Amino acid sequence: MDIKQKMLAEFLGTLWLVLGGCGSAVLAAAFPEVGIGLLGVSLAFGLTVLTMAYAIGHISGCHLNPAVSFGLWAGGRFDASELLPYIIAQVSGAIMGAGILYLIASGQDGFSLSAGFASNGFGEHSPGGYDLIAVLICEIVMTLFFLLIILGATDDRAPKGFAPIAIGFGLTLIHLISIPVSNTSVNPARSTGPALFVGDWALSQLWLFWVAPIVGAILAGIIYRSFNPSSQ
Amino acid sequence: MDIKQKMLAEFLGTLWLVLGGCGSAVLAAAFPEVGIGLLGVSLAFGLTVLTMAYAIGHISGCHLNPAVSFGLWAGGRFDASELLPYIIAQVSGAIMGAGILYLIASGQDGFSLSAGFASNGFGEHSPGGYDLIAVLICEIVMTLFFLLIILGATDDRAPKGFAPIAIGFGLTLIHLISIPVSNTSVNPARSTGPALFVGDWALSQLWLFWVAPIVGAILAGIIYRSFNPSSQ
Amino acid sequence: MDIKQKMLAEFLGTLWLVLGGCGSAVLAAAFPEVGIGLLGVSLAFGLTVLTMAYAIGHISGCHLNPAVSFGLWAGGRFDASELLPYIIAQVSGAIMGAGILYLIASGQDGFSLSAGFASNGFGEHSPGGYDLIAVLICEIVMTLFFLLIILGATDDRAPKGFAPIAIGFGLTLIHLISIPVSNTSVNPARSTGPALFVGDWALSQLWLFWVAPIVGAILAGIIYRSFNPSSQ
Amino acid sequence: MDIKQKMLAEFLGTLWLVLGGCGSAVLAAAFPEVGIGLLGVSLAFGLTVLTMAYAIGHISGCHLNPAVSFGLWAGGRFDASELLPYIIAQVSGAIMGAGILYLIASGQDGFSLSAGFASNGFGEHSPGGYDLIAVLICEIVMTLFFLLIILGATDDRAPKGFAPIAIGFGLTLIHLISIPVSNTSVNPARSTGPALFVGDWALSQLWLFWVAPIVGAILAGIIYRSFNPSSQ
Repeated sequence: MDIKQKMLAEFLGTLWLVLGGCGSAVLAAAFPEVGIGLLGVSLAFGLTVLTMAYAIGHISGCHLNPAVSFGLWAGGRFDASELLPYIIAQVSGAIMGAGILYLIASGQDGFSLSAGFASNGFGEHSPGGYDLIAVLICEIVMTLFFLLIILGATDDRAPKGFAPIAIGFGLTLIHLISIPVSNTSVNPARSTGPALFVGDWALSQLWLFWVAPIVGAILAGIIYRSFNPSSQ
Repeated sequence: MDIKQKMLAEFLGTLWLVLGGCGSAVLAAAFPEVGIGLLGVSLAFGLTVLTMAYAIGHISGCHLNPAVSFGLWAGGRFDASELLPYIIAQVSGAIMGAGILYLIASGQDGFSLSAGFASNGFGEHSPGGYDLIAVLICEIVMTLFFLLIILGATDDRAPKGFAPIAIGFGLTLIHLISIPVSNTSVNPARSTGPALFVGDWALSQLWLFWVAPIVGAILAGIIYRSFNPSSQ
Repeated sequence: MDIKQKMLAEFLGTLWLVLGGCGSAVLAAAFPEVGIGLLGVSLAFGLTVLTMAYAIGHISGCHLNPAVSFGLWAGGRFDASELLPYIIAQVSGAIMGAGILYLIASGQDGFSLSAGFASNGFGEHSPGGYDLIAVLICEIVMTLFFLLIILGATDDRAPKGFAPIAIGFGLTLIHLISIPVSNTSVNPARSTGPALFVGDWALSQLWLFWVAPIVGAILAGIIYRSFNPSSQ
Repeated sequence: MDIKQKMLAEFLGTLWLVLGGCGSAVLAAAFPEVGIGLLGVSLAFGLTVLTMAYAIGHISGCHLNPAVSFGLWAGGRFDASELLPYIIAQVSGAIMGAGILYLIASGQDGFSLSAGFASNGFGEHSPGGYDLIAVLICEIVMTLFFLLIILGATDDRAPKGFAPIAIGFGLTLIHLISIPVSNTSVNPARSTGPALFVGDWALSQLWLFWVAPIVGAILAGIIYRSFNPSSQ
């Protein structure tokens, strides 16, 4: 695979992650009487990754997330020279996904970006009003375990072919825990897409959703290496 | 497999898709207090495909959907000569599925087709009142990604045996996002079955649910070829 | 495996199906505010089969259901000489499962069998008040497709190891559709367990939940043979 | 793998089980309007095990639970000499998981440990008010079947690679049944973590959630041996 094919795959996959995950939240979570709730949104985010991992995993590895790229690099499983092109593709896809979602969502009377458009936040912009420290700890720890799952399930010693199930449902699990805290990021690209549309507070709080996931991911890479002396 | 066995498989599979997917919506979605909601309906649609893909995938490939047949053809993975027999079998199965559902559903006092019978629609017949443009974009994009998942997960380079999980849960994901928009089609046969029973608006809006999914599917076939130069 | 080991496996597995499936319905479906609803019950029934199929599939084939045994026999995949011992083990396990559930459920003040104890029924004992004909059609068709899934997913040409996922989630799907109609049986043993505790109407309606599933299963065996000329 | 790597894996995995399972319960179950309910909590507990089984199964076997270690030992599949280090790692991880959850949860105004912090209990501390005998039976039987699933799905004759799915969704199923009864333990480490924070009744009832799971697990080991004469 050349880098252009990999970048196209990462672009499409991250577009799908944002359109599917944030889309289910914006369009369906609170639909009257029969809405899918946070459980449905959690499932949707996980399934964007599960489906794309089977569809494009053999092309780009299906990171869809700058923190994942950093974590795989920290774990000795991804080349530093591809970090920048991957992240550019991911962020571009996330913005495009948010844009398509905006086109669809605004086709309903009464739609407003002021409802949050699935942005991540802390303090008064946390769904449950969690403070900055809680959100910071939560995002670091959730991303750390997300990367432990990714690194472990794609390890040579793990059963072949099952990693997309572990990773996709791992992201579902992370949402089941942490949507009330931070609306769940663990993915700087996913946070950036909606924040560019909402602007204001979503942009001014965006730094946390770049810093915390990348810190958590790199910590996971370090822990992973302790299980794998030969990869150091 | 001869074409008659393939057509029987597609007939049965699409019957199951409509009976199971639309059936869960009509019979169980809004059951008082403990109804399955849009999340349950989304799961049901996906599981019709997951189950049939394991049951008849080795017979017909388990398309169950004219847009899937078109998309696989556009991606260079299905022979044009089988398009017509597959679509005839799929639409026949969808009508039979809707008919069995009608028999069961009308066994309850107070059942009425005017509740929609799980038909797809736009404008005032969109569950959330989304306009034609939003529904058109949504159906094109959802089918496009559905076919990217199908083409990618059944690619020779993807892990063997897992495609039904990716594809089935991919359809679940698509419903989690888009039931409020269009009641989710991405499948002209699925739209045709209930529309024939409801008539009226459901028939007059049916064109969109043939055009948009097929357009999206063909676009996906073209994108897929860019990942697979050798298949062009 | 000797027949005693197979019977022990079928006994334990059917015990688990009734304890888990009916147990989730009796104990958790309508728990105030956070109850699992029909979606949770559907998932529970399916997961009893998924888990046991991986745990004891290599011992007895994990039928857990007289209709499944009849359907596999009709499809040319199970020996008639084992039908009776399998069914005895299944019904015994179902009764034991219902008994353990009774012990647990009655540890809560206010528990009463008159709430139905997850029994199957039609007419006024159908959860949604569906009449006998609707319930009969529903149980026949649902079991027919359940067996098509089982026979297809365990066929030599299907991917290896995935059948428990297809079959377990197939049972989940069937419940997502049909709990409102019949409380979902597709399994005479599952119906017999709770009915013996409830008595009265549950016993007098029990015949339907033996006849319909077995009819549906045998029809599936016949259809399956048309895909498999060599197995006739 | 040396024992230190195994202990680190068990520590991290059990931390994740408590943080993810109890975390979803404390943070998201009763979130207003769109909370994940007992169904979401059940899924979360199961997914902690599914994800870790793929991530660290090849390192430590991914027990994450003293009852699992005892049951595998009783089934002749785990060496007694590793019981103590495994249990130390598991209980330490569970306490750490509860500690991290406390840090996050207390970042919301109005958080209070007196809501239970996902502790297990009986009588007035059972979510549904189930008495001691019902809770005792329930925990023994649920753990017994949990171990039958684990022992069976990891048996040499079971399909390779699928055990984490069977075991993870098995734990989901157990929660779907029994959260109302005991808040579901089947895992002494999981019970110990939150109980140390809640103190009081949670500590004084903790004995049951060590005794019952271990009794159930050992019974399962004995039953499993009857299927496997050669392992005795």
